[in-house]
Amino acid sequence: MDSQETSQFVRNINLLQLDNDVLFHIGIKAGDQDLRRLLGDVKFVCMGGSASRLKWFAKFIQDELKDFLNSEKEPYNMAKSDRYVLYKVGPVLAVNHGIGVPSLMVILHEILKLLHYSGAQDVKLFRIGTSGGLGLEPGTVVITRRAVNALLEPVNEQVILGKQVRFPTTLDEELQQQLLDCSEDLPTAFGDTMCTDDFYEGQGRIDGAFCDYKEDDKKEFLQKIHDAGVRNIEMESVCFAAMCNRAHVPAAILCVTLVDRLKGDQITLPKEQKEDFEMRPAKLVAKFIKKSLEQHNGEMCSLSSKRTYRNSFASDRICWMLLFMLEQYINNYSF
Amino acid sequence: MDSQETSQFVRNINLLQLDNDVLFHIGIKAGDQDLRRLLGDVKFVCMGGSASRLKWFAKFIQDELKDFLNSEKEPYNMAKSDRYVLYKVGPVLAVNHGIGVPSLMVILHEILKLLHYSGAQDVKLFRIGTSGGLGLEPGTVVITRRAVNALLEPVNEQVILGKQVRFPTTLDEELQQQLLDCSEDLPTAFGDTMCTDDFYEGQGRIDGAFCDYKEDDKKEFLQKIHDAGVRNIEMESVCFAAMCNRAHVPAAILCVTLVDRLKGDQITLPKEQKEDFEMRPAKLVAKFIKKSLEQHNGEMCSLSSKRTYRNSFASDRICWMLLFMLEQYINNYSF
Repeated sequence: MDSQETSQFVRNINLLQLDNDVLFHIGIKAGDQDLRRLLGDVKFVCMGGSASRLKWFAKFIQDELKDFLNSEKEPYNMAKSDRYVLYKVGPVLAVNHGIGVPSLMVILHEILKLLHYSGAQDVKLFRIGTSGGLGLEPGTVVITRRAVNALLEPVNEQVILGKQVRFPTTLDEELQQQLLDCSEDLPTAFGDTMCTDDFYEGQGRIDGAFCDYKEDDKKEFLQKIHDAGVRNIEMESVCFAAMCNRAHVPAAILCVTLVDRLKGDQITLPKEQKEDFEMRPAKLVAKFIKKSLEQHNGEMCSLSSKRTYRNSFASDRICWMLLFMLEQYINNYSF
Repeated sequence: MDSQETSQFVRNINLLQLDNDVLFHIGIKAGDQDLRRLLGDVKFVCMGGSASRLKWFAKFIQDELKDFLNSEKEPYNMAKSDRYVLYKVGPVLAVNHGIGVPSLMVILHEILKLLHYSGAQDVKLFRIGTSGGLGLEPGTVVITRRAVNALLEPVNEQVILGKQVRFPTTLDEELQQQLLDCSEDLPTAFGDTMCTDDFYEGQGRIDGAFCDYKEDDKKEFLQKIHDAGVRNIEMESVCFAAMCNRAHVPAAILCVTLVDRLKGDQITLPKEQKEDFEMRPAKLVAKFIKKSLEQHNGEMCSLSSKRTYRNSFASDRICWMLLFMLEQYINNYSF
């Protein structure tokens, strides 16, 4: 199959045959809306588990990017299904993915198709989530170096047509460093992230409905994975990394730790502190996005960084036009 | 470990040591509420993917069971987290589980612990969902005979402390037959259900973001699993069956088919028809619950089936008291 026939985000020649692709879990028909106009300027997709946290994030990023945006309208949920939410704020698309790899995989297929139909370019994807930490102070944001599965392998295993297929979970190292450079006063760490298919037995907790092992077995397991470089455990990273890798999209995973699993299982943070911690990955990504937009504006025209996002592109076009006219003038009237 | 020390629903001696178990994903602390009073009378737990469909189900079941209920108050969401919803309507607990095995497993751990702390007894669990059918008219409700994974094995595989563990997905055959007896005019079928970790490549669709196989490969795969007895494909069944089996709770899975996968991939039902189809598993379970409550009332006292649910238990107690007094009377005044 020739990937040239589709786009960066997808590798599926069959999509060319679909008149009006139904993106079932977000209730959007690709042919029914002008997706190029609505979403063609998306540059950053930010995903997290909970629908209400992503609704909050959409408002938060709107406030953070107010100097770059034309509109102050409250972000609205573009999804027409009740399975996921989808908010567009300037160059940012905020999407929830629910809990676990399958829930994430379903929405990632549809988001990648959405980006494909929208003709978006130079897009980066971020997962901003929560996790259990290992040997870290709760509240630390872990920037994932490698995503590994529950067997410590850097792969996402899928079963396709009855056969097991393994996809590597390679992440963009440059993006990791750029995010770390934005962390400033936020407690941040680099480390491997373990992805499990369960929160209780799957993460060695002893407080699930079932537990056929002892506290010592759990401690030995957690110490073993800590020694192997794992700094936090969550439930989506290998899929997020592998799918973005397949789509050739730079991606990063930033999860705050809500508990140090080397010390306990239960998450007993006071409500305010939990909410404060949950905001940290969003704050870090917001800093990165602002810095990217400022750099983009600065690089293109050295104009004021106070321009709106859309205006920045309009100004870029004027700049290039002036340069082109100047070049023509020099060529025509050169000595 | 002695399961006598805990209860039917859980097998975890560590729970005895927890002062106030935090059920994190529903935001309920077991020690903070009188769970025995709130949930001790739960007899039927009904679970489905979408939060809004479960909200609808709570209102629907309230209307269906109005002859058995004391209260007409609108059901409210008992969950204090934004991850899942939880509605209590008389003897019914309605809970959403999101998409996929991990999302279901997290909430099932917490629901089983909730039933344990509530002292509930004789509880049955139902998954009422949607699926892709195989060789069935869309709109057919499939009562799952066996839940199999994407490799056609009747097991749910978990990774616990870095080791792969397989749990059988045995379901209650008597309950399957009882549900079939309630189906009346609803198009219903028995069959095996395949559980996958993805909706696109995982179910052999050719309309995902990626597709490295051909239409013929897909057809061959779907025909193969159809020939093996699979009548529908969804994303939670092996976990639901295996977890309920571990908890010794009778459980059943009823999923309506929204498309015949032997004919196509895309779900293009008109909105009204899709909603009508989605209601069918709920209607079937509602019939079963009503029949169970009527039989319970009839068997216990042969009193009017118009009594309220709570009153039926009050009446049962009075019945037994009268029988006890009659027995004493006969014993004391026998010839």
